[in-house]
Amino acid sequence: MVYGAALIAQALRDLGVQVLFGLPGLPVIDIAQEAMNLGINFISFRNEQAAVLAASAYGYLTARPGVVVCVGGPGVLNTMAGIPHAAANAWPILILAGSAETHNANKAAFQEMDAINLVSPHCKLALRPPYPHMIPDFIRDAYRAAFFGRPGPTFVDLPANLILGTFKELDGGKAKRLRRIEEVPRGMADQVGVRRAVEALMGAKSPLVVVGKGAAYGRAEGPIREFVERTRIPFLPTPMGKGILPDSSPLNISAARSTALKHADVVLLLGARLNWILSFGLPPKWAPNVKIIQVDLSADELGKNGHDPSLSLLGDVGLVCEQLLQALSGGWQYDAAQKGKYWQALKETKGRNEAKARKKAESSKVPMTYEHAFQIIKKEVDSFRRRRMGMLCM
Amino acid sequence: MVYGAALIAQALRDLGVQVLFGLPGLPVIDIAQEAMNLGINFISFRNEQAAVLAASAYGYLTARPGVVVCVGGPGVLNTMAGIPHAAANAWPILILAGSAETHNANKAAFQEMDAINLVSPHCKLALRPPYPHMIPDFIRDAYRAAFFGRPGPTFVDLPANLILGTFKELDGGKAKRLRRIEEVPRGMADQVGVRRAVEALMGAKSPLVVVGKGAAYGRAEGPIREFVERTRIPFLPTPMGKGILPDSSPLNISAARSTALKHADVVLLLGARLNWILSFGLPPKWAPNVKIIQVDLSADELGKNGHDPSLSLLGDVGLVCEQLLQALSGGWQYDAAQKGKYWQALKETKGRNEAKARKKAESSKVPMTYEHAFQIIKKEVDSFRRRRMGMLCM
Amino acid sequence: MVYGAALIAQALRDLGVQVLFGLPGLPVIDIAQEAMNLGINFISFRNEQAAVLAASAYGYLTARPGVVVCVGGPGVLNTMAGIPHAAANAWPILILAGSAETHNANKAAFQEMDAINLVSPHCKLALRPPYPHMIPDFIRDAYRAAFFGRPGPTFVDLPANLILGTFKELDGGKAKRLRRIEEVPRGMADQVGVRRAVEALMGAKSPLVVVGKGAAYGRAEGPIREFVERTRIPFLPTPMGKGILPDSSPLNISAARSTALKHADVVLLLGARLNWILSFGLPPKWAPNVKIIQVDLSADELGKNGHDPSLSLLGDVGLVCEQLLQALSGGWQYDAAQKGKYWQALKETKGRNEAKARKKAESSKVPMTYEHAFQIIKKEVDSFRRRRMGMLCM
Amino acid sequence: MVYGAALIAQALRDLGVQVLFGLPGLPVIDIAQEAMNLGINFISFRNEQAAVLAASAYGYLTARPGVVVCVGGPGVLNTMAGIPHAAANAWPILILAGSAETHNANKAAFQEMDAINLVSPHCKLALRPPYPHMIPDFIRDAYRAAFFGRPGPTFVDLPANLILGTFKELDGGKAKRLRRIEEVPRGMADQVGVRRAVEALMGAKSPLVVVGKGAAYGRAEGPIREFVERTRIPFLPTPMGKGILPDSSPLNISAARSTALKHADVVLLLGARLNWILSFGLPPKWAPNVKIIQVDLSADELGKNGHDPSLSLLGDVGLVCEQLLQALSGGWQYDAAQKGKYWQALKETKGRNEAKARKKAESSKVPMTYEHAFQIIKKEVDSFRRRRMGMLCM
Repeated sequence: MVYGAALIAQALRDLGVQVLFGLPGLPVIDIAQEAMNLGINFISFRNEQAAVLAASAYGYLTARPGVVVCVGGPGVLNTMAGIPHAAANAWPILILAGSAETHNANKAAFQEMDAINLVSPHCKLALRPPYPHMIPDFIRDAYRAAFFGRPGPTFVDLPANLILGTFKELDGGKAKRLRRIEEVPRGMADQVGVRRAVEALMGAKSPLVVVGKGAAYGRAEGPIREFVERTRIPFLPTPMGKGILPDSSPLNISAARSTALKHADVVLLLGARLNWILSFGLPPKWAPNVKIIQVDLSADELGKNGHDPSLSLLGDVGLVCEQLLQALSGGWQYDAAQKGKYWQALKETKGRNEAKARKKAESSKVPMTYEHAFQIIKKEVDSFRRRRMGMLCM
Repeated sequence: MVYGAALIAQALRDLGVQVLFGLPGLPVIDIAQEAMNLGINFISFRNEQAAVLAASAYGYLTARPGVVVCVGGPGVLNTMAGIPHAAANAWPILILAGSAETHNANKAAFQEMDAINLVSPHCKLALRPPYPHMIPDFIRDAYRAAFFGRPGPTFVDLPANLILGTFKELDGGKAKRLRRIEEVPRGMADQVGVRRAVEALMGAKSPLVVVGKGAAYGRAEGPIREFVERTRIPFLPTPMGKGILPDSSPLNISAARSTALKHADVVLLLGARLNWILSFGLPPKWAPNVKIIQVDLSADELGKNGHDPSLSLLGDVGLVCEQLLQALSGGWQYDAAQKGKYWQALKETKGRNEAKARKKAESSKVPMTYEHAFQIIKKEVDSFRRRRMGMLCM
Repeated sequence: MVYGAALIAQALRDLGVQVLFGLPGLPVIDIAQEAMNLGINFISFRNEQAAVLAASAYGYLTARPGVVVCVGGPGVLNTMAGIPHAAANAWPILILAGSAETHNANKAAFQEMDAINLVSPHCKLALRPPYPHMIPDFIRDAYRAAFFGRPGPTFVDLPANLILGTFKELDGGKAKRLRRIEEVPRGMADQVGVRRAVEALMGAKSPLVVVGKGAAYGRAEGPIREFVERTRIPFLPTPMGKGILPDSSPLNISAARSTALKHADVVLLLGARLNWILSFGLPPKWAPNVKIIQVDLSADELGKNGHDPSLSLLGDVGLVCEQLLQALSGGWQYDAAQKGKYWQALKETKGRNEAKARKKAESSKVPMTYEHAFQIIKKEVDSFRRRRMGMLCM
Repeated sequence: MVYGAALIAQALRDLGVQVLFGLPGLPVIDIAQEAMNLGINFISFRNEQAAVLAASAYGYLTARPGVVVCVGGPGVLNTMAGIPHAAANAWPILILAGSAETHNANKAAFQEMDAINLVSPHCKLALRPPYPHMIPDFIRDAYRAAFFGRPGPTFVDLPANLILGTFKELDGGKAKRLRRIEEVPRGMADQVGVRRAVEALMGAKSPLVVVGKGAAYGRAEGPIREFVERTRIPFLPTPMGKGILPDSSPLNISAARSTALKHADVVLLLGARLNWILSFGLPPKWAPNVKIIQVDLSADELGKNGHDPSLSLLGDVGLVCEQLLQALSGGWQYDAAQKGKYWQALKETKGRNEAKARKKAESSKVPMTYEHAFQIIKKEVDSFRRRRMGMLCM
């Protein structure tokens, strides 16, 4: 005899899920309980809105789906605050939602709502297992879909009778066990394209590397760091691309962002979308004839906003950076002398802006500047870190 | 010259909107400001989720649309926590949401999201005005749709350039002024059906009136009270149908709910859905051959869960109750003697259950019972009301 | 033991379905066969597109749902050519579609497609019965929803295993029998509104009756005919409103359509939408200050395109016309003398346009005019009808 | 001054579109006319259903989007017969549909329907340009999205006023010209995965290559042919994968399909989905412990139906086959001797089935067998081909 909630929890455990986010209630509370029995941490929230956003952050940081458990009807509606976010930002999450008993379908049952209909347009996969023995397969498929290819949200609707029922016909009384998915399939770029991209970079007068959150998600810090160090091309992180390369690098031209975008003639865009944060990659913020080498695992991003996709590279950011490094193996480096005006302009703007920021940071004028507030916090954090080394590391 | 936000605020004012719910932000903050300039109260929230639920309550209580103002993208996503609720519960709300500038469409602009696509399946009407001069018409249509017929949510998507732009070609510089919608069209039932229903009631051995929230929304308390007083049929309010008839009435058999549902042979269902709260109107909670006279403004509710719709009455609850009263004008009354066993059973159960509840209410056992907690609160509220008469009236 | 297809066919038979439209194929061919065994006519088509349009016409003409049977996947996709039409035009249809076996869900089975997701935004109700014993209830609910309230399309998805399976647990081996739905609930207008409308009509200088297809659907020809005959108000049928009143009536001012719309000051709109066919009810085709008394069973139509809904009447066209007749019982008639210029203008334009049309009809110029072609056909039809009286009657 | 229809036609021309499929009507007839003026072939249909299916075939065969032009409302509804097919089968199509004038939005205009809402859940991208100057960009984006990444349907909604209007402010009177998209980004598999796959193949006792339509779409015939010739692994084409490798090859074991699937221990699946055509890749048709090396450009296919994705390869079928060839460069070949029982079983079954088919083909029994009919046709075709060499080549 197999209890539905136990079957669900076991499926999650088999897949390697370590944390569940959610708000327990009828009928999903037993899923949470069974999951905890199997050693899965359950993090409880007061609103499914927060749970789904936390799971999204977890999915982004760990590159494995953040799993949410919630009740049907209003619970699912509250998760809608996060589902399309996860879709837009390529965050892997899996939502397991309770729903009305199958035998009460179409009767206006407690919290009855067709969640599949609601979430389908926003999810990579949204499923409702028709029979208990299909639960593990459906959970695995939704879990897999959440982080295979372009990551995003997936959903499994679990009628109360499947969660709370006890079933005997499951493969002779034993639930199907799932294989853990050890890694996601990753792709590399076409070699012809890699050579073309390298030639464009080597021919650039004012090249720029832009590092986006896709690079962070893809754990591409190793090859990117090596690429930047070897080529000496200045780089710019997007807000969520920060941390992949050290802020303190002399090649980091965050403080001369506008100047860099305006003058760059060839941009290597690593896992970043050409959205409003990057001014769409369009004039007046970008040079009109800029060539963009987009590196992305989603072909749909390549050529965005009218850019010529012929230089772009489809593939995992880390693997493609390794391909670029190999193609550059002769040891080419962006020439400081050749950099001329571009590099000079970047350095000057950077110096000027950093000085301005420092001044503001030290100013004790009222009202307080952002920079000053931030400096106070930073000092505290630094001192705390020194005292308790390792505590904040993650 | 007309400012978009002012045009929007004026449209709301013309329609008689007195309160706006929302969370101001770019680009809708100016709508809130202009609305306040015109004397509209703006009630600010920390999360659009709360704003839309508050507006739903306002819509339910006032029978005019509760209007929400929110930003696009995440703001709209947060309102999804309330939109399908309003659809399910027939609460009139109108959501005015900002969105990305038209000229940045499809570029991945700030908070760009196709809100119309998102909310359409859940709204009675979801519109995006293509030109500024069409804004007032679109707001009026969405406002009207929210409370005409079966109430529900409607939505107007307002691109930032329409809100923040200044336009000169609007009817010679003056915005179009809207006519206030003084009342909603209400329908009555077919007279043949009314006679049929009255005959069924008069022939009933164990009749019951169930009063739902549709009766409250329809402000049907006058005719319902007269109907119950004249016919002496016992009644049962649903949780949200409470308050239409006095709890203290001897005909109120809330305390004998199960007994009433189980034995009633003819039920007059006033503005209540046969959903889980009413055990679907089905056995084992209801008698297998019960006849149900559903009174509802939505024909789609009539015949729900397999009930014979031939006794049901399509129309406004208040108007239909007046029709019933007129058809009963001979002065028929449910006969106490005839009530026999049914009435006896109701009274006994009611007495027993009320005694039980009283006992629990007075018990000071630990842990505290719900009933005791509620009694303490009730005493405080009553005393407060006595001291400050009128303060809590609404 | 009950065979799924037989259960489905019996449900249709019990509901009074006499004709099935469709294209048989796996797995729905057995439904067609079982339906024929029960005396239901099956009309077979080469493309589901045609089947759904034929069923829509049947639904419109009979005021009971036209029922379509089709295969899943491509079959359902083909019906999409008709579903939103039925929704827009308020035609009652019910689509019964096969689908992949439940146990192959999410495996990319033969013609697997989530039809519920596809059609839900366009249907009044779209359901998939989870268990065989729920099939009759689901079919009845979808059938009922198709013609209760504002008619439209509904849909039942039937997995192959439910159609082709043989089940023993159905109520002791016998399928649940459904009650036939004898009539749809119809509503009348608020009496206050009726009086207001009658006053507006009586005070009109240039009144007009517009008869739409809603009047035909509602079988309102009796009361409308009496209303027009008694009031002597000129009338205009929409293209699908033709036939409710005799074309030959002297009050029919179709031939002076533009003049009538331009000058009418009070329009009684019977079951017609203010759409492009009626030039939206707006200037320049309509008078700027025209008062429109919309009579419609859907409150959502009332006040369309900015018209003041305060004169409009919610209800069944036939019942409301009876209310109007009763309110006019004093015997008021639109005064020929008072008609003055309006009536004169209508008559003149009508005479002029009819003469023009007659001339074109008789012209044997090449290329042939529409009018001439139509006259030839008309003569043939008339002669045929004389010879075989009754053959074409319907 | 730029005419909208000309602008649209020019955009198509710039993108290299050579054929338009459709059914001309208001307001898209001018697009067809302008396209023909620019040398684009317009192929006219009687039903949009057929047009969209033809365009899908064209898209599949040419690997560039098949472009459809149709009217709004019913025209778009008819295309729904093909849109989800294109989505399911990864066929690149772009639908350009007319729609009601922007200034008549929400008035119930001629054929007014929110096509974006209708098609969005089924399209990779569905857009409506808000201004004329954005038309070329929107068409390019939809065109690009149709064949970048996993191919599929895209949609551009063109309001009548944008098609039929004449605009002066377009970049100084000249329409923006688009760059032709010469090629789509293609990806290769991770080298680690390639080595893992090659090891699995080399260790197989009974390997099998399955060739699907994705291999045909990807023009992978060169590398696949080389791969099969060099490795001597038997192969099986899916129905739409036929033609990539010669049917006459001794390694083609189509005639022993069931035997092959049942015994294969390692399957290299080239651009084929594990759907019903391949019995889901599951027992009883497939061996329970089969290892599947899926090669697909869509990561979402990898691991379908519970298969271990750890051997699967993400990338363009052709490029991945080249990677496999390179990894096999040592010259490994599937050993005939080693093949033992597997190869013997395949050959025997193949021989037996081919003999059976030949016998049926020659039988002149009545009713005629499929095989006989097909043989007659084949002879005619072969003779025709001999006489007119090249005529049927494609």
